[in-house]
Amino acid sequence: MKTYNVAILGATGAVGREMMKVMEEYDFPVGDLKLLASARSAGKTLVFKGKELTVEEAAHDSFKGCDFVLGATSNALAKEMAPYIVEAGATFIDNSSAFRMDPKVPLVVPEINPEDVKWSSGIIANPNCTTIITLMAIYALTRISPVTSIIASSYQASSGAGAAGPVELKDGARHYLENGSYEGFEPHTFRYPLAFNVIPEIGSESDVEGYTTEEMKMQNEGRKILHLPELKVSCTCVRVPVVRSHAISAVIRTKDVITVEQAKEVISKAAGVRLVDDLKNHVYPMPLDTSDQDTVFVGRIRRDLTDDHGLNIWCCGDQVRKGAAANAVQIMELLVR
Amino acid sequence: MKTYNVAILGATGAVGREMMKVMEEYDFPVGDLKLLASARSAGKTLVFKGKELTVEEAAHDSFKGCDFVLGATSNALAKEMAPYIVEAGATFIDNSSAFRMDPKVPLVVPEINPEDVKWSSGIIANPNCTTIITLMAIYALTRISPVTSIIASSYQASSGAGAAGPVELKDGARHYLENGSYEGFEPHTFRYPLAFNVIPEIGSESDVEGYTTEEMKMQNEGRKILHLPELKVSCTCVRVPVVRSHAISAVIRTKDVITVEQAKEVISKAAGVRLVDDLKNHVYPMPLDTSDQDTVFVGRIRRDLTDDHGLNIWCCGDQVRKGAAANAVQIMELLVR
Repeated sequence: MKTYNVAILGATGAVGREMMKVMEEYDFPVGDLKLLASARSAGKTLVFKGKELTVEEAAHDSFKGCDFVLGATSNALAKEMAPYIVEAGATFIDNSSAFRMDPKVPLVVPEINPEDVKWSSGIIANPNCTTIITLMAIYALTRISPVTSIIASSYQASSGAGAAGPVELKDGARHYLENGSYEGFEPHTFRYPLAFNVIPEIGSESDVEGYTTEEMKMQNEGRKILHLPELKVSCTCVRVPVVRSHAISAVIRTKDVITVEQAKEVISKAAGVRLVDDLKNHVYPMPLDTSDQDTVFVGRIRRDLTDDHGLNIWCCGDQVRKGAAANAVQIMELLVR
Repeated sequence: MKTYNVAILGATGAVGREMMKVMEEYDFPVGDLKLLASARSAGKTLVFKGKELTVEEAAHDSFKGCDFVLGATSNALAKEMAPYIVEAGATFIDNSSAFRMDPKVPLVVPEINPEDVKWSSGIIANPNCTTIITLMAIYALTRISPVTSIIASSYQASSGAGAAGPVELKDGARHYLENGSYEGFEPHTFRYPLAFNVIPEIGSESDVEGYTTEEMKMQNEGRKILHLPELKVSCTCVRVPVVRSHAISAVIRTKDVITVEQAKEVISKAAGVRLVDDLKNHVYPMPLDTSDQDTVFVGRIRRDLTDDHGLNIWCCGDQVRKGAAANAVQIMELLVR
């Protein structure tokens, strides 16, 4: 069987480690696996398929002989390394936001726009986690009628801030429970204490007045992934004290009216998605149920009471898996198929 | 100075106790204070203005000599006691949902529709907590142009389930932190473990397909409070692991376009509300900052990118205070003024 040499750029972070785990679970035909990270992490060892591998410092000449490089690093390092990766003849599947809006780079969710990998010239971008999870929930609807607008409020987990996120969340919770207040607790990963709180700011200020960069991703990336350049999205991104699955409350407006029954039917048949929708029996997606797996759960589907062309949905998915690592490995699978 | 005899029906619950605290803080001219509760709580003592008072079992003849009865009890008990309260000549300010949609009962937020107390015939209803907080945030906008629709996603605190809510939230958090999972933890107050989770169900199934009773309150009660019988509201109510302040992400559509600057100006001048809106400096409403006070914080005001007639807002307020106890005491103040 043909195997592929893979490098992970940023192997020691939360997403890099999860990429290893996903390749193991998927039994992806990895030949050599190269683990790359900053000088600080070089020399650490990580286990892949029972074998101990040593992390190397990422350098411009690290990519020789690689078929794929999975990027799980900063925008700056992704930008610096990309030309060397492409020059080495490897395909760079990058989870940073550095190339997502580059017109020469496809932005791919394999269930939604697999055909876009064809026009890649060496770099394929992995979308934003909240965008992937929301679009996974609704892409089946776009097959019935184009989506014209989305209004979304997110409930984003601590893992979105990397491996340090869940650690600080739990440390803060312990402090609060022991002391009855946050006095003496200094958050570093999040701007404010997250446990027993919600923080309505993710990312930095964008060029759209009053919106954060994270909030604009669903519109910008959604337009590109869905091939809907006119799509309008109003998004409010909120960090909540959850370990690692994101949830999104969204109103979806479509050109033609889609009934709740139609929506449930197409979503129940969509790949990568599970319909979890039985309010009478208290069945709906929740972060505790969706972690450590790739499937996006969708439920609470009902009419938007403010517009006949709208549907309300609630969806939930593991931000580290389908929101990042699993989607990247799935792009790689798509390319070798 | 004239004083008023007050009874609290349901004095030992979270809202009942907070009503006592608010009357103390406001220095409301209380003559006699009668604490009423179920047989189970009778005999307990609570302190009001430094005096120990004994809780009595609520009975049909408990209300003689009362000027006001503040209701902090179930719909069933509120319905049972209401005729006896009115017969005794007292005004019943009820926090249950039993009378909110009764056309003979005003539903009042003192900052928004104080004039409605005039047509009361003995009962005045206190609105739903999420509805109060959301309407407080936006009522200043309705003075510029009528609100036509609201799309809201809530982040509701554990205190909404009564005094047992925060206790179970903290117990669950401790269990999860100690055991790394919820194995062996049985929730009772909430249907699922709440710490490190979010639960998209509050209330029970309503008569509107797919919506909960809690979700329909913002439309039903909003129409009555704002005197806008055509108001349309799509609401998703979600319980989050927060102790006691609710937050709401909302899109507000108005008949005429309201600019962000206009919105900020009128909200900054509105009674009971504080504009907390400076994204550049990471200033926005958060549950940790709004608890134990009556003011509703409003921020993240920006254009709705999907509709010119829309504005996005984020608001946050203490659910036990302005969402329940404080609003009820403010209605009483309005009546004696």
